[in-house]
Amino acid sequence: MDEAAIIERFFLHLGAVRTDVALGIGDDAALLRAPPGFDLVQTTDSLVENVHFLPGSPARSLGHRALAVSLSDLAAMGATPAWALLSLALPAIDTDWLGEFATGLGKLAREHRVALVGGNLSRGPLNVTLQMTGFVPAGTALRRSGAHAGDEVWISGTLGDAARGRLAPGNAAGGAAGGACADEQAAWLRARFEYPTPRVALGDALRGVATACIDLSDGLLADLPRLAAASGCGAVLDVDQLPLSAQLLAAQGAGAWQDALLGGEDYELCFTAPPAAAPAVAGIGARCSVALSRCGSLRAQGGLELRRGGDVIQFSHSPFGHFPA
Amino acid sequence: MDEAAIIERFFLHLGAVRTDVALGIGDDAALLRAPPGFDLVQTTDSLVENVHFLPGSPARSLGHRALAVSLSDLAAMGATPAWALLSLALPAIDTDWLGEFATGLGKLAREHRVALVGGNLSRGPLNVTLQMTGFVPAGTALRRSGAHAGDEVWISGTLGDAARGRLAPGNAAGGAAGGACADEQAAWLRARFEYPTPRVALGDALRGVATACIDLSDGLLADLPRLAAASGCGAVLDVDQLPLSAQLLAAQGAGAWQDALLGGEDYELCFTAPPAAAPAVAGIGARCSVALSRCGSLRAQGGLELRRGGDVIQFSHSPFGHFPA
Repeated sequence: MDEAAIIERFFLHLGAVRTDVALGIGDDAALLRAPPGFDLVQTTDSLVENVHFLPGSPARSLGHRALAVSLSDLAAMGATPAWALLSLALPAIDTDWLGEFATGLGKLAREHRVALVGGNLSRGPLNVTLQMTGFVPAGTALRRSGAHAGDEVWISGTLGDAARGRLAPGNAAGGAAGGACADEQAAWLRARFEYPTPRVALGDALRGVATACIDLSDGLLADLPRLAAASGCGAVLDVDQLPLSAQLLAAQGAGAWQDALLGGEDYELCFTAPPAAAPAVAGIGARCSVALSRCGSLRAQGGLELRRGGDVIQFSHSPFGHFPA
Repeated sequence: MDEAAIIERFFLHLGAVRTDVALGIGDDAALLRAPPGFDLVQTTDSLVENVHFLPGSPARSLGHRALAVSLSDLAAMGATPAWALLSLALPAIDTDWLGEFATGLGKLAREHRVALVGGNLSRGPLNVTLQMTGFVPAGTALRRSGAHAGDEVWISGTLGDAARGRLAPGNAAGGAAGGACADEQAAWLRARFEYPTPRVALGDALRGVATACIDLSDGLLADLPRLAAASGCGAVLDVDQLPLSAQLLAAQGAGAWQDALLGGEDYELCFTAPPAAAPAVAGIGARCSVALSRCGSLRAQGGLELRRGGDVIQFSHSPFGHFPA
């Protein structure tokens, strides 16, 4: 099966069909028609074996995650996704793997009306790089830099699940040790890692309400200071208010808040809004069916202050970095 | 040196400064403003170690080639380049390597007014993936599919140099064996591989004149049939008319035409135009300072017929494929 046959079989009809795609896969480049009055929003992310996933990770999950991480970036800008390009390096052709990968990618693409408009297939160590373009009404995108001292910090969903789920045994590998309930918890946490939910509808709804937004890919302790610094502020975070799932609490007990602070790859949104906007934010959460938790606020003084039980706490940590300093 | 410091030092100010970039590197995604009345043109390409280049290849060349291959795709559509995203997987941080890579990429980016608007840096086996967006006046893009039987086949520049240059010793490694003249030839051929010239101005000028176009990345013998098939045609190619450089002729002698047929990575354009357009095509070549050679024509009957010295010849070959069938 040569490259053309692989593309034809697995990728040509994978995503959504969109009328703004004048020419998709099959020429030197794709031809696309952006709607007037909108800004384009572009991002790219890679999944690399032994870094972002272990050898033997389910291909369906990799297909899902490759798109989900870019959709999450768009969500953080308040953008609506449209077109994706996929660069795939594979050590060899495994049609079962490709079928599963395409199934995971295609399902999420259709859910978000994303068309796969082009790409590249190479031999090489497994590397999945996806580039995404979306739209946002001109001048209305959410940014990291729009927050002010006094704005409250909100977080969607629950934190720490993905980092714990990454370590959880797969469904097949569960069993003997844990019992049915522990198995269910492990499977739920693992699904949070393998099939993250990009908060696209939430990001869209937050335009005009949130003052700044970032998606949580490296963990709150790394990402919140980025938002605060981009806005020329510092932040105070009440770790007692961090949203924790019942499954994480069952698995981690009293230490769950540390997973929520440090764990990456949740792909939840962290955003800010003035206190007066709290009812509007709560309404958006209800409409989007996403739990939204208020966990702190921005302040003029730089840095990140953590509070627990009303006291300022010290917390030493080393957030994830590909190339630690 | 962590990721943020690497991006700040090597990539933040690398490309052209463009007024249509509302927000570049540093947020969750870039914000871009497409001009009204234009179609967007998008492509992506990867360079993978041990596949597209050997370990120890000059980093400056890799930076150049990563962008050049995508610029060449845009040239084949008649598009003007604008914005690039870079996904870079590196086994370790080598600031000398990064400096050279950024120099090669940045120089070509500024030449073509390309802004680097975002990207991604991961640890992993060396993989350089670049995505490119450009514009073309709405509905005027060149495609592979627009040619008709009777159209003539044109080729820019010279063919086969890159494939030969890939095998040529580097400047430093030349010397003893060859003598000054052979060294110069080898260096010239090697530069054709390491620093290909994307034919952006030519592609732009060919809109409205060429009926179809493709860039020569896999070799004429693989790429011309793609154009012909997309246009519902076959092709006749006169190998005596293939454009050969003096350097390739000196290195390969009478066998040079085979390099020109089979060799990939020249990133020249292959395009078609009706015979009546030949004077216009010649004028475009002169204005763009690119040699343009007429080497054959399209016909209704499918397949590719090769002619040499007036006779039809048989030529067995196996064009490059990442995953040969």
